[in-house]
Amino acid sequence: MIDPRFYLLRGPIAVANLAGGGRVQGNETRVVSGVASFDAAGPDDLAYFDGKGIAPKSTAGAILLREGAANSSHDGSTLIFCTEPRAAFARLAHRIAVPREFAAGAPAVDPTAIIEESAILSPGAVVGPDARVGAGTLVGANAVIGPGVAIGRRCRIGPAAVLSCALVGDDVTLLPGALIGQNGFGVAADALGPVDIPHFGRVIVQDGASIGAGVTVDRGLFGDTVIGELAKIDNLCQIAHNVTVGRGAIIAAFGGISGSVTIGDGAMMGGRVGVADHRSIGRGAILAAGSAVMHDVPAGETWAGYPAKPLRQWLREVAWLGRAIGKRDGGQG
Amino acid sequence: MIDPRFYLLRGPIAVANLAGGGRVQGNETRVVSGVASFDAAGPDDLAYFDGKGIAPKSTAGAILLREGAANSSHDGSTLIFCTEPRAAFARLAHRIAVPREFAAGAPAVDPTAIIEESAILSPGAVVGPDARVGAGTLVGANAVIGPGVAIGRRCRIGPAAVLSCALVGDDVTLLPGALIGQNGFGVAADALGPVDIPHFGRVIVQDGASIGAGVTVDRGLFGDTVIGELAKIDNLCQIAHNVTVGRGAIIAAFGGISGSVTIGDGAMMGGRVGVADHRSIGRGAILAAGSAVMHDVPAGETWAGYPAKPLRQWLREVAWLGRAIGKRDGGQG
Amino acid sequence: MIDPRFYLLRGPIAVANLAGGGRVQGNETRVVSGVASFDAAGPDDLAYFDGKGIAPKSTAGAILLREGAANSSHDGSTLIFCTEPRAAFARLAHRIAVPREFAAGAPAVDPTAIIEESAILSPGAVVGPDARVGAGTLVGANAVIGPGVAIGRRCRIGPAAVLSCALVGDDVTLLPGALIGQNGFGVAADALGPVDIPHFGRVIVQDGASIGAGVTVDRGLFGDTVIGELAKIDNLCQIAHNVTVGRGAIIAAFGGISGSVTIGDGAMMGGRVGVADHRSIGRGAILAAGSAVMHDVPAGETWAGYPAKPLRQWLREVAWLGRAIGKRDGGQG
Repeated sequence: MIDPRFYLLRGPIAVANLAGGGRVQGNETRVVSGVASFDAAGPDDLAYFDGKGIAPKSTAGAILLREGAANSSHDGSTLIFCTEPRAAFARLAHRIAVPREFAAGAPAVDPTAIIEESAILSPGAVVGPDARVGAGTLVGANAVIGPGVAIGRRCRIGPAAVLSCALVGDDVTLLPGALIGQNGFGVAADALGPVDIPHFGRVIVQDGASIGAGVTVDRGLFGDTVIGELAKIDNLCQIAHNVTVGRGAIIAAFGGISGSVTIGDGAMMGGRVGVADHRSIGRGAILAAGSAVMHDVPAGETWAGYPAKPLRQWLREVAWLGRAIGKRDGGQG
Repeated sequence: MIDPRFYLLRGPIAVANLAGGGRVQGNETRVVSGVASFDAAGPDDLAYFDGKGIAPKSTAGAILLREGAANSSHDGSTLIFCTEPRAAFARLAHRIAVPREFAAGAPAVDPTAIIEESAILSPGAVVGPDARVGAGTLVGANAVIGPGVAIGRRCRIGPAAVLSCALVGDDVTLLPGALIGQNGFGVAADALGPVDIPHFGRVIVQDGASIGAGVTVDRGLFGDTVIGELAKIDNLCQIAHNVTVGRGAIIAAFGGISGSVTIGDGAMMGGRVGVADHRSIGRGAILAAGSAVMHDVPAGETWAGYPAKPLRQWLREVAWLGRAIGKRDGGQG
Repeated sequence: MIDPRFYLLRGPIAVANLAGGGRVQGNETRVVSGVASFDAAGPDDLAYFDGKGIAPKSTAGAILLREGAANSSHDGSTLIFCTEPRAAFARLAHRIAVPREFAAGAPAVDPTAIIEESAILSPGAVVGPDARVGAGTLVGANAVIGPGVAIGRRCRIGPAAVLSCALVGDDVTLLPGALIGQNGFGVAADALGPVDIPHFGRVIVQDGASIGAGVTVDRGLFGDTVIGELAKIDNLCQIAHNVTVGRGAIIAAFGGISGSVTIGDGAMMGGRVGVADHRSIGRGAILAAGSAVMHDVPAGETWAGYPAKPLRQWLREVAWLGRAIGKRDGGQG
């Protein structure tokens, strides 16, 4: 369910008004008031099904899907047929919900924000409506705490950091310029061209986590992007939508974690590690600097390389290649 | 020609006053009032020629060049001979033109800026003189819209984004902390040491383009850096001076596009792709994550690797290397 | 010694009050008033020894170390035994010193800051207590100059740049969003889990250096991170704690320089070069784009590859691999 602290629900809208020219099947008078993933959608939600074949059973109020993707298991949902369901969703969703923004003429610190007494707002800090800043927290100069954002106690929010759609625990450090909670990167396409997928989730930063300077953490598509307790993220990393970073995991500079990746507790990544989307890095796994991970990495293993493979194998390849060249060239390498 | 919305032209200056100790050949009383690339320079412009051999014919008013690089085809230009023309240009150009800046004591929103009625400026936003913000556009908290910058309609400029020397179309999204229009990276050197090349171009962001959080887009040296219509750029990418990103092209996180690269319409790049300067990526080409592209990539092809090569070839190398090591080591890999 | 311009020394504290449950050996009534590296610590400083074996001789007032790491050479120091000295230091150091921050209700430009007459502060710029901005320097819109930061003459500090714990020379350029002087990345761990290492050093940016948009430069752990005279750093680079970048060195975009690396004068790095911690890049060395450097690189050499090796060797490997695959596959590559 969309968190109303971060999204403005624009009121129930009749499915018939969403369909455009698309064919509607089922109850045309149904209204929806939210958006959700296909799996989690309830009777008040609009969802989309972009997979191949027949959509699984769903409790969604309305579903955007392709002709041929429906059967009798969808009798409870109003169906909107379209050629590109994901793109159609991207173009329609703003009619149901949009991120809350600052109003014209809003003050730098909104009177509805709750700033606990011992919190400090440095000069130029902006705090949105209904935001919360806990006791002992320091908000840096020119930082931006967006509408509804909640920050716990004893946090240090660096200068020029920006938070939106985020819930931050206690004892969290954000270094300067950390950018937390913006829309994730997703592009759908239809006959009109590419379109950004709007994201309706949040970022959760758990207690004691630290996030480096210039890091970007995108909010989830529907669910949450989670930075686990005591996780330590170095400068200029990119954490995409719906990633989960485990407790105490460590990511060195330029780490790039693609959408929906899960990183186990205590995993460690050297600099410039990339992980492809939907992959899983096991608990305590180690990824050497520069690894480009395209497969799941089992717990406790150490991998390296582009593409990444177990460290021993990578070292063997590197050494072997050096020897082979040396031999061929008479050892002059 | 330099865009006076972004650069302060400091008035005509006599070539004789620019020459320092350099030998001047031709009309010493000539004055120049602008700077331009060697190819595009007109009779009022100072240009430089840094190539090998004899400079081609030029209509430039004045040319910085090396002894021996001139012949009778330059009779119309005043010539200033120097040992390092590019460095000489870098050290002289500020006497002809400089970027417009905020004045001391300037207000946060300059009274000469034109903010259309339905645009929203969030708290802390700074808007420079002669800037324009179109109807329905939202400027985020603590964003900076530099002098002369024009932003179209229905754009979303994220918090802490910074724009200078930029023209932005309609329906453009800049996520938080996007940095658009700063000086490009270029270093010349002479006996005094390295010197930054001043850039006099712009950034053009066309309609419907989206630029991620923390992305940097440098302005052109003389011409423009162009982000094409509906192009989609993920977080923490670097787009260098004079790059052209084609319509609907997609660049995932950490993409690094070096100076003067052309990216064709609809090209797609996975995460952490680098492209060397002056290369061309064809229409619809696909570059796998991590590719380091040092050659032109033909339209429609898929490449991968470091250095990048056609995907099939790269996959073959990766597989072959794995097998070779496995065989040598008795399959214990 | 900690620079009191940047750190608040919280007053002498008795070693007995720092020990927690740890065993103390030596003068328990000793007080310390600073923190320092093990090598540099004097009689008023707390230091830690995290190495293997017996700690070398030290003049530190108090030392956190493991049982068994001490001998009679430490008679002059008060010893605090603990299981994880580095983590213990991380948890204790804030009782001795903390970075200076803005006070609640502080003005945007602190009255104790010294702004020379011809300096320009753009709208939204924040300048902390005791900061200095030299003549002819331009501070961009919404930039943040932290407490005690000193900036020389004729500098250009870009919009949204953030400086803390930094001393900046003359004629320095920081492009927009450059983030200078934040805490370095270091994680210690003990039974309570991972903990950030607090950094007590500075960033020194020498005359004529240029730092790109979105670049992060972390301050030193105890000593300084130094950006040498006329060094040129492109956008989105990461310069870790205690790095020294030599005079006139050039680092292209996405350069990642790990902790305590030394880069020689005039060294040049292509885009996306990474250097592992504590490595040394010799004077005038060249690192090709994408190099991942895990060894020291001698002066004047050119290296490339992942892992990086001398360029000739790397080119040979790349070419050989291509031929080997081609041969095996009947030249269809």
